[in-house]
Amino acid sequence: MVKVDLSHAKLNEDVLSYQSEVSRIHRMIHDKTGKGSDYVGWVDWANTYDKEEFARILDCAKRIQDQAEVLLVCGIGGSYLGARAAIDMMTNPYGKKDLEIIYVGNTFSSTAVVRILDYIKDKEVACNVISKSGTTTETALAFRLIRQFMEEKYGETEAARRIYATTDAKNGLLKPLADKKGYETFVIPDDIGGRFSVITPVGLLPIAAAGIDINALMDGVKDATHDYNTDDLTTNAAYVYGVTRRILEKQGKSVEMFVSYEPHLVFLAEWWKQLFGESEGKEDKGLLPASVNFSTDLHSMGQFVQEGTKNLFETVIRVVNPIEDMVFPSDEGDLDQLNYLEGKSLNWVNEKAFEGTLEAHEITGNVPNVIIEIEKVDAYTFGYLVYFFFKALAMSVYMLDVNPFDQPGVEVYKRNMFRLLGKTK
Amino acid sequence: MVKVDLSHAKLNEDVLSYQSEVSRIHRMIHDKTGKGSDYVGWVDWANTYDKEEFARILDCAKRIQDQAEVLLVCGIGGSYLGARAAIDMMTNPYGKKDLEIIYVGNTFSSTAVVRILDYIKDKEVACNVISKSGTTTETALAFRLIRQFMEEKYGETEAARRIYATTDAKNGLLKPLADKKGYETFVIPDDIGGRFSVITPVGLLPIAAAGIDINALMDGVKDATHDYNTDDLTTNAAYVYGVTRRILEKQGKSVEMFVSYEPHLVFLAEWWKQLFGESEGKEDKGLLPASVNFSTDLHSMGQFVQEGTKNLFETVIRVVNPIEDMVFPSDEGDLDQLNYLEGKSLNWVNEKAFEGTLEAHEITGNVPNVIIEIEKVDAYTFGYLVYFFFKALAMSVYMLDVNPFDQPGVEVYKRNMFRLLGKTK
Repeated sequence: MVKVDLSHAKLNEDVLSYQSEVSRIHRMIHDKTGKGSDYVGWVDWANTYDKEEFARILDCAKRIQDQAEVLLVCGIGGSYLGARAAIDMMTNPYGKKDLEIIYVGNTFSSTAVVRILDYIKDKEVACNVISKSGTTTETALAFRLIRQFMEEKYGETEAARRIYATTDAKNGLLKPLADKKGYETFVIPDDIGGRFSVITPVGLLPIAAAGIDINALMDGVKDATHDYNTDDLTTNAAYVYGVTRRILEKQGKSVEMFVSYEPHLVFLAEWWKQLFGESEGKEDKGLLPASVNFSTDLHSMGQFVQEGTKNLFETVIRVVNPIEDMVFPSDEGDLDQLNYLEGKSLNWVNEKAFEGTLEAHEITGNVPNVIIEIEKVDAYTFGYLVYFFFKALAMSVYMLDVNPFDQPGVEVYKRNMFRLLGKTK
Repeated sequence: MVKVDLSHAKLNEDVLSYQSEVSRIHRMIHDKTGKGSDYVGWVDWANTYDKEEFARILDCAKRIQDQAEVLLVCGIGGSYLGARAAIDMMTNPYGKKDLEIIYVGNTFSSTAVVRILDYIKDKEVACNVISKSGTTTETALAFRLIRQFMEEKYGETEAARRIYATTDAKNGLLKPLADKKGYETFVIPDDIGGRFSVITPVGLLPIAAAGIDINALMDGVKDATHDYNTDDLTTNAAYVYGVTRRILEKQGKSVEMFVSYEPHLVFLAEWWKQLFGESEGKEDKGLLPASVNFSTDLHSMGQFVQEGTKNLFETVIRVVNPIEDMVFPSDEGDLDQLNYLEGKSLNWVNEKAFEGTLEAHEITGNVPNVIIEIEKVDAYTFGYLVYFFFKALAMSVYMLDVNPFDQPGVEVYKRNMFRLLGKTK
């Protein structure tokens, strides 16, 4: 399902020489004996999740599609990035949709908030507010504005039928508010952190509402759970990728640049950046995650990758079969001199751009390239791929002797901001 | 107009100690004696540009608005990033627009191309194709498809009235094609490279079509041209920023992270990344440009900036006055415990996020922060700001003893790709 190709990675060491360390860490992950092991609920989630709640997600997704023209997904960080990655990957951004998804509660920008409130004034809306504690300020602030708007527009009872809260099972501020108002609620598990939550109701409700098959998505997670439950580096591609990152870091790289060749994968890169950056950016360690979309950004960032400071390696996600394709037509007179491409498919051209770039960066530019290949973009593959990345990062970050599952640094700006805002409780 | 605040930049050296080097390079830029000085047409462009052509741009922008529901801006790299940065900054992304702008010709993704062709089928369209040589494959390929679509839809005569070509004055493939077909054409000057071309017809036609005041934009460029025509580091903020980047590099940083607090500045960051990355990423040198949008990305990349590898500094663009603002309302019962913000403006909250983050990153995280402050987001400020960045980068890159104005590395992937595509001429 997911292939890792290291033949362009310029490794000075054999990945297999890490087998004993990998075996030790594999046991740590599965025996829950490593740092932060209260948060490895994702490891076997595909076999343990609440089927009754999953059925409710499917029901509510249908209800949202019936109720609304616009679904406001109100959350920040892990509470929206996974859903947005999946929805951007698997839906067409152009043209009128039965249900438009707008991501809110992820910024303090007054301009963004005012514009969205203005835009939804005459729309039929539903809202999925996603916050474990209910105290994340960006999300809580936007949700107050949306809730007041919806209660004024629909009255309190109908507004409550259109608001869905994904939150802690019992603690925090959002759960009691939801209970008091009578919202349908979904649970964010205690042992799965935000950046792993795309496979929980956090991601699944918006993804299902967008019309994506979450049964297939969870089948992908389940199959990956099975396939990557081995410490054997000759078969576990996730661990191979996890080890490779550390080898390249030892070779002097401090930046990992995630590359895709499809615009609909831009938010998969954003999701990946949180997953890896937030998991390993601690104790002055870790690879800085960055991203580009080729060939678009070959005309902006390409020069730097080709000839600039040698501080980075590229991790390229390659999709074998595109969602759409067409044959390039002939043109009379050939004034643009492109008739040599007549009869070729556009995706074939994109493939040649990938191959030409790989050669340029690896051989001429001396930049290591790790290739991650998937067959196609669909819900099953998405589920499989996210689990591949989860397992890869657990291995990779434990190799740094860092807790992959906390994010203590995120609190620092919040403490300062609360002091400046005059928050007293 | 543009203030640079170094009080959080943690510099070990005094910027003013670079005065003699700055004076020497300032003369190089203005006397056209530095590397690549055939490409410094932007330096005095605000005083030399063709006023008759500018008037035609205004006319054509109006004509496009009358003709079309959708303007297809067909270009890649510098041929679309500047326009997109300006248009994203100054227009509201939500709701139906009189003229929708779609950026095409910047990818080989078959999925993206097919979806756009399908979307525009029933729309009234116009196209601005932007390519100096006419041989940039992404753009030429998309333009053939769009041209054929438009000729079929409108007939050749009416299609020609809806297609505008911005290209070389006489050389290349696009100019003869445009002349033969009878397109209105605009000139890409020989002495201004793609990443500086937002102040030429390349940027100005789409920006004007989007309803933005390009007279004000050029006024901003002109005033900046005057204000930054001095080598005095006590008054030239552009040079101060240019020098600061090099000092931080000497202090061990290899990544410059561009930070904004407004979602509508995301593409300003993309434009900035091309400008700096493509100008200095040569001879194994240069700062890798990266970008984040806060507070959104504090919940994804924030952890890494706060506590990860210390390979980066932040350059924060701060907008004093937002485009839109509102007062945060009270709520009965205060179930979300946000009543302490009652009566505050949302932008005030965003300001506190900025201040709290600055303190967190600078003091707790030990990450240098360079602050670039602008009063507001409008056409005049945009023009002023882009010239600020032009002048800053010329200084900064000449300090590396690198030609800031070529991009030899971009050709490598193209050569490989053409070989793989079987192109023979």
